Order: sequence, then structure tokens, then C-alpha cells
Amino acid sequence: MGFKTALQGSADATEKRLASLLSEKTGGAEALNEAIAYSALGGGKRLRAYMVREFCELCGRSPECAIDYACAIEMVHAFSLIHDDLPAMDNDDMRRGKPSNHKKFGEATAILAGDSLALDAFGTICGNSLCSPHQNEKAVLVLSKCAGSNGMCAGQQYDLDGEGKKLGIDKLTRLVDLKTGALFSCACLLGCIAASATEEQSIAAEEFGLLTGRAFQITDDLLDIRSTPEVLGKSIGKDIKSEKSTFVSLLGERGAEEFALECIDSAKKCLDSFCESESKKRLLSFCDYILTREK
Amino acid sequence: MGFKTALQGSADATEKRLASLLSEKTGGAEALNEAIAYSALGGGKRLRAYMVREFCELCGRSPECAIDYACAIEMVHAFSLIHDDLPAMDNDDMRRGKPSNHKKFGEATAILAGDSLALDAFGTICGNSLCSPHQNEKAVLVLSKCAGSNGMCAGQQYDLDGEGKKLGIDKLTRLVDLKTGALFSCACLLGCIAASATEEQSIAAEEFGLLTGRAFQITDDLLDIRSTPEVLGKSIGKDIKSEKSTFVSLLGERGAEEFALECIDSAKKCLDSFCESESKKRLLSFCDYILTREK
Repeated sequence: MGFKTALQGSADATEKRLASLLSEKTGGAEALNEAIAYSALGGGKRLRAYMVREFCELCGRSPECAIDYACAIEMVHAFSLIHDDLPAMDNDDMRRGKPSNHKKFGEATAILAGDSLALDAFGTICGNSLCSPHQNEKAVLVLSKCAGSNGMCAGQQYDLDGEGKKLGIDKLTRLVDLKTGALFSCACLLGCIAASATEEQSIAAEEFGLLTGRAFQITDDLLDIRSTPEVLGKSIGKDIKSEKSTFVSLLGERGAEEFALECIDSAKKCLDSFCESESKKRLLSFCDYILTREK
Repeated sequence: MGFKTALQGSADATEKRLASLLSEKTGGAEALNEAIAYSALGGGKRLRAYMVREFCELCGRSPECAIDYACAIEMVHAFSLIHDDLPAMDNDDMRRGKPSNHKKFGEATAILAGDSLALDAFGTICGNSLCSPHQNEKAVLVLSKCAGSNGMCAGQQYDLDGEGKKLGIDKLTRLVDLKTGALFSCACLLGCIAASATEEQSIAAEEFGLLTGRAFQITDDLLDIRSTPEVLGKSIGKDIKSEKSTFVSLLGERGAEEFALECIDSAKKCLDSFCESESKKRLLSFCDYILTREK
């Protein structure tokens, strides 16, 4: 199976499992459940879920064993998008071609929908009977660390701090590594945990996630000035409007492209220590996809 | 040791351990760390932490073994207060006698501080080496369920839905059981998990939490009309202003007092099946305290 087929298959499996997990939550408030489903279901590329599943397979276990970890990280990703879009944060009205959560459900419910997804994600990990309590405990530690005050949330705070300021490339890289890279790394690590990978494999996986996350963000910066709202499903030109430093504003388009290519070359090298397999071939294609994606 | 001494000792131990846990998080953004510490440290009654620790002792293990669970639930409680105070939610400017988090740090950072505390709480549970991976896994499941889309967050959504409407006593009780009771129950259950309590003990503990949570909320409603901002450290008369149904608006002051007393009588009965101990005596005093507290 090639990369594109695997990515689509992974997205479908994740979507199906997520829908099933959410449908079990029937005790709550209707408006809240609707707002949660609106953002957690119905698409997205599910790249993080793919990485969880593919690293599980790369390390020798069926990706189905990591399906709940894949769902958990997509829940955390969905939560972060809902909160990022809020008026007090990036104030975005559109997401994936439709009104953002707070535009559809109001700010208060959007905040609660994000909160719920963040909180439910950890229960999803610990409800996973295909992994041991020890694996689930490790998975919670990794997700908490990568998403919390020393991970993604710190990246978002640096992003706020940096508005209207010119950051150096070092500070911007630190920001991006936290805001985007931490969750990419987390995805790879969750796959490793589900497969009981070695320490060496886990270190390589974490680095792979950080580098592909960095390249992903550079591509995002390029798409923000090159693409259209119709193709991206969200507003464009935001970075210029909010006077945020980006890899493009600091390095120029050509320099940003070169930096992304460097990150991807290094990411590919992280896979050197893994045995040859279909899974490894697909992860190499995933690297190219990160560079060439159009949305 | 009497109840008041135990409560103060528990609060001190929790505060100290929380400060230590937060100080380990030095990789993040300074403004965010400051906002987190502002709300997570510096007081509060720490009732939930007390319940975790006291139920651990009641079920036969030293409360120190449950200290990280106690910190985790206080982190989730602090997160919920930060988000509840936001302009889009209850729009409260004061909390514990000082400006609420968003008044001090701005809305965006307040949202992130709440998010961080929610996410970090689960890492705190799983970093607890005094309990087994199996215990930590159970603790995550319970906290996630009680706080997430079928627990506290659902209660907050019902609260929003109910503004300007007259709820029946059944609907108000469901709201309060989710908004307040779920986390009280969670606290008692976390103590049981840390002490490897029996199934029967855990069921009684959960019920005890729900009933004391309900009584706590009734007292809150009464204090909202009887106390002063100086004593409470937050604004009063909010319920009337936001046209929310409360136990007082539905049952009158006298009726609300009677209902709280009924809840506390039932809560005390939940302790019948536990052996006589200092811990049990203190929990009976805790019940009386819930009824008579002045802030």
C-alpha cells in the first residue's frame, strides 16, 4: 500500500473510531456534544493520527493497536484549533471551509468544547485495552508534556508574545518547535509506545516529529501567502496582517523553501536506523508530501 | 488531629507540592508560567485536595501517597475557575479577593493558563511513582470522565443554557451534580484509588462526593445573597443579575437550607460502612463545615 492510500485509510479509520468514541458520550449537554462533534469529526488531514499509526507499524505492531492514541491526539489537535480560533486568540472566522467553532456555537460553548476534548483525550488513552496500563501511563505522560505548559501551550504563548515584534530565527524556531513540533513528536512517540519500541527508536521518532513539524509550519507560512481561502479552507494573509514573524518574513520565500528542504532531509535521516519496510517507504513519501502539500 | 487542623495541614502540603510541581516546568513561556502560578498557587480552601487525601487515609493508606492526585484535582479546579471567569462565560473580575486571571494577564493568556493546567494535571497523575501504573491509569480515567464532556464541562454548558430560564429542581440538581458534584466525587474516588479501596468503599465515596458537592452549591447560593464581596473574595448577587435558577430562587432560603441539611445527612450515612477512625470523624466534621462555612 502506497503513502496516499495509507493516509486516506488511516484518516477513515480514525474518523470512524472517533465517531464511535464520541457517540458513547451521551450523558452530557446536547449543545456541547454538537460543538465537540463539529470540530472533532468531519475531516482534516489527520496527519497526527497517521504518524501515530505508522510509527506503531514501523516498530512492529499493527496500527490498529494505536487507534485510541491516534484518536486522543486528534482530539487534542481539534481542541487547540478551537481555542486558537477564538476572538481573544487568532480571531479566525473560518476553519476547514466552514465557520469556526465559536462562530457556529458561540464563544462560551466553543471554550467548553475545546476544554472537553482536551480532558476526554486522556480518558481515551487510558480506556485503550489493547495497550497495558504501563503503556497508557507513558502515553498520558507524553501527551501531557507535549501539549501542556511546556509544550504546545507554551508555543501558543510565544506566538502571542511575538505579535508585532521581529523575532530572530532561533526564537521563531523555538516557537514553532513548541507550537507545532511538540504534537508531531508526540504523535511519533505515541506510536512507539503502542509498539513497545526501543529507546533508540523513540529518540529517532521524536526527532523525526520535530523536524517534520518544523517543515510543516514553513509550508504553512508559504501557503499563507501563495494559496487561496478556497483551497485552504481558512483565511490567508493572516501573518502579514498580525505582523507575526514567519520563516518567510525572516528568510524570504526562497530561503524558507531551502530551510524546509533541510528539515525534511534531516527527518529522512532519522529513519536510517529502522529496518527497510513498506512503513518506512511510506514515511519517506510522507516527508515529501509535507514539502509539496497544497493545503 | 481535628478536622480544622487536618484541613489546614492538607492545604499546606498541597500548596507546597503544587509549587514544587510547577517550578519543575521551566521550559515554557514566562508570561504563561506566571499566569498558571497566579491561579494554581496562593490559597483557596483546597477542599478537593483534602477529600482526596482524607479518603486515602480513610481507606487505610497514608494521605501522602495521594498527594499528586490531590494536586492534579486542584489543577483541574483552578483551570475551571479561570475559564469560568472569562468574559464569554461568567465574566467575573474578582476571584479570591484579587483580579481574576484574565483581568491580570489578558484573555488569551488566561485561556492558555487554563488549558495548561488541565493538560498538566494528567501528567501529574501519571508521574506519581507512589501509585502503580494501574492505579494511575484508573485515576486518569476517573478525572477525565468527571471533568470532561460528560462531567464538569457538561454542567457548565447546562449552566449557560439555563441563563434567563426557570429550571425545575430536577434539572437544577442535574446541573449542580455535574458542575460541582462530579469533581467532589472525583476527589473521593481518587483517594480510594490511591488506597486500593474496595468496590463497595468506592461506591460510597462517590455518593458522598456527590451529596457534599450538592450541599456545597446550596451553601454557595445562600452565600451569594447573604455574604459580602469582602468576605467571599468575589462578587455577590451574580445569580440574581444573570437570572440563573438557584436552589434559593426555587426553594426559598428556608427550603434551600433544609435541602442542604438533607444532603449532608445522606452524605454522613455514606460513611456508615467505613470502620470507626479519626479520619471518619473528621469527614463527619467536614460535612458540618460544608453547611456552616462562611466563605
